[in-house]
Amino acid sequence: MLVGEPDWRRMRAEGASAPMFAAEQARVERVVRAAMAQGVVVPVPKDPGGGYTHEQHKRNYLALQGAGALYRLTGDRAYAEFAREMLLEYARLYPVLGPHPARRSEQASGRLFWQQLNDSVWLAHAIQGYDAIRDALPPADRERIDEDVFRRMARFLSEGTPDRFNAIHNHATWATAGVGMTGYVLRDRDLVDKALLGTAKDGQGGFLAQVDRLFSPDGYYAEGPYYQRYALAPFVIFASAIQRNEPRRRIFRRKDGVLLKAVDTLVQTSYAGYFFPINDAMPDKGLDTEELVAGVAIAYAQTQDARLLSVAQRQGRTVLTPEGLQVARGIAEGRAQPFAFRPLMLRDGADGDRGGLAILRMGGGRPDDEHGQALVMKNTSQGMGHGHFDKLNWLFYDNGRAVVTDYGAARFLNIEAKAGGTYLPENTSWAKQTVAHNTLVVDERSHFDGDWKRGEAHAPEPLLFEVEGSGASSAQWTGADAETQIASARMRGAYEGVAFTRTLVLVGHPDLPFPAAIDLLHVEGAGPARYDLPLHFDGHLMSVGFEAQRHSAVRPVLGARAGYQHLWLDAESDASAAARSLTWLLDGRFYTYRFGASAPSRALLVESGANDPDFNLRREQALIRRIDGVGDATFFGVLEPHGRYDGTVETVHGAASRITRIAHVRGDAASVIVLTLSTGNTLALAVADEPMQDRAHRVTAGGRTYEWKGAWARFDQQAEPARSAAPTTEETP
Amino acid sequence: MLVGEPDWRRMRAEGASAPMFAAEQARVERVVRAAMAQGVVVPVPKDPGGGYTHEQHKRNYLALQGAGALYRLTGDRAYAEFAREMLLEYARLYPVLGPHPARRSEQASGRLFWQQLNDSVWLAHAIQGYDAIRDALPPADRERIDEDVFRRMARFLSEGTPDRFNAIHNHATWATAGVGMTGYVLRDRDLVDKALLGTAKDGQGGFLAQVDRLFSPDGYYAEGPYYQRYALAPFVIFASAIQRNEPRRRIFRRKDGVLLKAVDTLVQTSYAGYFFPINDAMPDKGLDTEELVAGVAIAYAQTQDARLLSVAQRQGRTVLTPEGLQVARGIAEGRAQPFAFRPLMLRDGADGDRGGLAILRMGGGRPDDEHGQALVMKNTSQGMGHGHFDKLNWLFYDNGRAVVTDYGAARFLNIEAKAGGTYLPENTSWAKQTVAHNTLVVDERSHFDGDWKRGEAHAPEPLLFEVEGSGASSAQWTGADAETQIASARMRGAYEGVAFTRTLVLVGHPDLPFPAAIDLLHVEGAGPARYDLPLHFDGHLMSVGFEAQRHSAVRPVLGARAGYQHLWLDAESDASAAARSLTWLLDGRFYTYRFGASAPSRALLVESGANDPDFNLRREQALIRRIDGVGDATFFGVLEPHGRYDGTVETVHGAASRITRIAHVRGDAASVIVLTLSTGNTLALAVADEPMQDRAHRVTAGGRTYEWKGAWARFDQQAEPARSAAPTTEETP
Repeated sequence: MLVGEPDWRRMRAEGASAPMFAAEQARVERVVRAAMAQGVVVPVPKDPGGGYTHEQHKRNYLALQGAGALYRLTGDRAYAEFAREMLLEYARLYPVLGPHPARRSEQASGRLFWQQLNDSVWLAHAIQGYDAIRDALPPADRERIDEDVFRRMARFLSEGTPDRFNAIHNHATWATAGVGMTGYVLRDRDLVDKALLGTAKDGQGGFLAQVDRLFSPDGYYAEGPYYQRYALAPFVIFASAIQRNEPRRRIFRRKDGVLLKAVDTLVQTSYAGYFFPINDAMPDKGLDTEELVAGVAIAYAQTQDARLLSVAQRQGRTVLTPEGLQVARGIAEGRAQPFAFRPLMLRDGADGDRGGLAILRMGGGRPDDEHGQALVMKNTSQGMGHGHFDKLNWLFYDNGRAVVTDYGAARFLNIEAKAGGTYLPENTSWAKQTVAHNTLVVDERSHFDGDWKRGEAHAPEPLLFEVEGSGASSAQWTGADAETQIASARMRGAYEGVAFTRTLVLVGHPDLPFPAAIDLLHVEGAGPARYDLPLHFDGHLMSVGFEAQRHSAVRPVLGARAGYQHLWLDAESDASAAARSLTWLLDGRFYTYRFGASAPSRALLVESGANDPDFNLRREQALIRRIDGVGDATFFGVLEPHGRYDGTVETVHGAASRITRIAHVRGDAASVIVLTLSTGNTLALAVADEPMQDRAHRVTAGGRTYEWKGAWARFDQQAEPARSAAPTTEETP
Repeated sequence: MLVGEPDWRRMRAEGASAPMFAAEQARVERVVRAAMAQGVVVPVPKDPGGGYTHEQHKRNYLALQGAGALYRLTGDRAYAEFAREMLLEYARLYPVLGPHPARRSEQASGRLFWQQLNDSVWLAHAIQGYDAIRDALPPADRERIDEDVFRRMARFLSEGTPDRFNAIHNHATWATAGVGMTGYVLRDRDLVDKALLGTAKDGQGGFLAQVDRLFSPDGYYAEGPYYQRYALAPFVIFASAIQRNEPRRRIFRRKDGVLLKAVDTLVQTSYAGYFFPINDAMPDKGLDTEELVAGVAIAYAQTQDARLLSVAQRQGRTVLTPEGLQVARGIAEGRAQPFAFRPLMLRDGADGDRGGLAILRMGGGRPDDEHGQALVMKNTSQGMGHGHFDKLNWLFYDNGRAVVTDYGAARFLNIEAKAGGTYLPENTSWAKQTVAHNTLVVDERSHFDGDWKRGEAHAPEPLLFEVEGSGASSAQWTGADAETQIASARMRGAYEGVAFTRTLVLVGHPDLPFPAAIDLLHVEGAGPARYDLPLHFDGHLMSVGFEAQRHSAVRPVLGARAGYQHLWLDAESDASAAARSLTWLLDGRFYTYRFGASAPSRALLVESGANDPDFNLRREQALIRRIDGVGDATFFGVLEPHGRYDGTVETVHGAASRITRIAHVRGDAASVIVLTLSTGNTLALAVADEPMQDRAHRVTAGGRTYEWKGAWARFDQQAEPARSAAPTTEETP
């Protein structure tokens, strides 16, 4: 059994006085009533994702789940009758089905759907509806449905396809969840054990192994937030069923409570309601997804963490379960607390030793205001087949928008005209390639030459993650404070003989209206090479602060492979050692990026969309900084949000950057970046090549000597009084 | 005097209990308090628009206006003192100023600002603040400010620059408003008379002539909504002052109440809160602009039209005047009624005989829901120097978005890095050109060869405008009903020897989820020519329903001049007589455009952004249909919104078009467009070349004969039963 009569009784008694629960019940009633008005429609499987039969079977599992709940919540037998008739229809259809005619491979074929995965999802939903009506059925119907629908489907998904079922993979989690819940409902211990421990019942496969191995100790899922959202649902739904049926397993405490951490982590890996679109991700996915609605309810029921209620408020709905009732009551009683988005390091890998996702956050004023600055540094492992080749990539958010962007996946989900709704060819040829990201490309080849299996063997080495308070629990001193957050990592193995180290820093300063992001990337190569460092950004270019040859009349393509074939080249500068700048406008705020390098570099302005015969790509711009013919090099830059354009009242403030100069100095085993502000004040950030806490460093630059001990230091200097009185507004270059 | 003590007393007494008024007072207090904290800052004029001195003088007039009102509303003398000190500072500065150093021409130079227009705006605002404090000043200060600021400025703007002051132009309206209100405040009849009647006091110039000649009888302003918004403010503000000081002039009844109509018309020329961006328009301007906040308050005070209150609710604020108090009270008392957006024809020209703007609207469910369909057909006159060369252009809105788009102006308002914030060179070379619009281009030249003065001589001839009820007041029968709205016009003179006639129709049908837009354009030329018909649209291409050669690897430029130099050519088909289709996705809804022509035509897919060295243009796509070498030709097409993509729940419905075929048949002096729907049903629209009501027509097509009398007719036919039972899902081509 999944939900017992005492729970249903409480939902009946208290649901009406918890508005969010009542609203969800009304919403589900509309959906199920519409399905009932259509009658039972169980078509013979035919279409791939997005097609008619696919969508109808999806509607059916939602209708079954909803009808079951409504029967128990309202006592109206019409709901149970509708579910019964539909399930009898499935009992007629399912036993005679072979592999789906639109399957893409024999192995992965479902029966109702083109992918077995969808069959698992069907089972995990439908069994919940069946649980609610099963006791009300005549014995003959119950037996028929038990055998010809649920047990048959559970067997197909487990012992019928053991390799898929026993895999440590999120598809298998849906299968184990469906099979395991079926076991609880049919009182079939064998099914439950296989779901928990794998078909061999040895714990090598199955749900418990998945819990242990698919999430990192910080609740991070290697494929990234988009798939974490998808993977999360069967984890928490099945865990909730385990908790009810076998509380002694203490499933929510397993691996130090990793399932509950995973819910929190998923919320943390979002900005302005949308998940960070790293790896194969649809950019329109966010906190309001179905999966996280269930996740938040189940986590809240376990933890009573009132911050989760504010996430539910933002979602605007909950689920028709005992957990959903708790959420709705918590909100109705005014117990919601702001969800505190905070800087944090999410270790990757089952044991937390495969790199991680570093998130720096500042600003916003209130702890739950996600409209401040967020900087995401992708120091994670490959993330299997959905991973992108973007080691040490970064994203930057400000003012509610992604400013330094990630393309995400090249896909139009379930839109048949676009490769049947699956990943487009351009997902491989563009979206996964290194040049489509904001990280180092060597010799116009992607990391690991685009081979994800090679990528799995190499994770970045995190060097630093310091934010206010992060050092508090350790003896070591950290300089991180409210105005400085720093993350650093090193990557070896993405290219033969090449190591690159990147440090990203969020810095606030009294002279700056918003925190700025400093980027320092040092590469040590095997010999002379071409180094490209792209910056993909959103906004309209306001000024190009450097001389560049414009390709205004014929637009060439930048390269031939590894994503370069998809880039139009709009402008390119000559090689120069001088720092440059670029300013753009996004949603009423200006962004100035100042950048330079240790060797003469060129600046290219490009746009995606070349060699895209089917218009599959969004057309987005990027700056590429290029150094040719050296082995070791350093790229440095600073991204500064400033000013405000208000179209309604036609005013412009602060259109000029407040940083007038960026300089970089190499010392012995350390770098110093010096920013000169328009007030004449300076902000210097010193970073040692190796993050050893006890080593002393000394770098001399521009008549100043920077001395510090440890991995990094920040030096703020006031302008000389004379200079301060007459602030310069000179811009570089 | 502008506002008398009894009015201030009422605002003091009632303002606190009208939340919107109280909120505005609090907002203005924050602004003025911030200015007072900075102290009086009256810099010597130096910068152009967007620069420091420009913005400071703008802040000052708002501070003066606000301080005056707050002094009267709160009795706090600190406000009056701040305004007094600032005005004394202006009294020191203003008399010694010559032409502005950043002026663009001697003639148009202001004193405080680079453009005289801004000086007029300064005066029109500051005089309102002065009106509120003048009685409280010591006589010596009053005299000094009267003379050295206001009278001096009023004289400069009137007799000092009579040609500009007496012009029938919106810039002159700001001048007459400032000068006239100054006259009322200083009790200077001479200034008032000059403002009303021109410097010669003969009524050839001045405000009254502007009222008579700048608006059409329907309250439409020839430059379009963007400038109508800007022009409206001085009209209604000065009219309000006239009404108080000289009620016998019945200024709001002048020309059949045209000023009040202008407010209503401005609201009507918007969709989802934004004005139709025809001519030189910034696309981010909408109902919440300052000018319309004042306009709505003043119109409401005159008419008590409760629908205007819902516009004020949407604006979220009002003004600190007696009219603003009425609005706030009306809202507080729950009197707001929905503003009814409706289809309407807005005649252009002072006498209403210079074409007009046709607006078709359907859908949305509620009368105030602007999220249905809107089709705008631009059959207006040239609109002077800000007019675009786009006769019979059209725009289409659906689902809250512009689907068939207009670029608007190429400008970044007040952003110094972009040509000082003025119109960009690309405004002339691209945004105004015909190919940047959705209308006919002949031989790659723009209408009137891009000469707006030639354009002023030729207005389109409206042929038809029929919507439900539009024929009710006349004896003639109209076929327009809830499911059919039609507009038609003819243009001669845009090209030598060429006449083109366009008919646009919104049609609803039980088989279609949303109304579709039918487009029929017939051109009669002087001889063989190249005819291009662009369709600029927003969304991501889902499928290109025709064979086309893709320029994937090198992207050529389409042409050399008249805007063509700014278009990259992405794909082009061979010439063919077959109908084609194109489907795109915008904000979760699909749009399929099916189109054909009477002669073999090619289809080109293009994107703006070529020959744009400073990255001034947004990059937007268009379809261009091209016919070469014929004299007479007909283009026909239908745009169909359908389906829904929901990224949150990953569902897709209705991705396939419901219209499977479009055909066009020429008969004797008439055309018939036949749409075949996926049910097999057909919808035929018959349009006579000449809109004579009593002429009978007969056209035979596809075994059917269409007979009707009058300008047009619609024929809906059910599929044959056999066909209906097996609906085809075949698509063209």
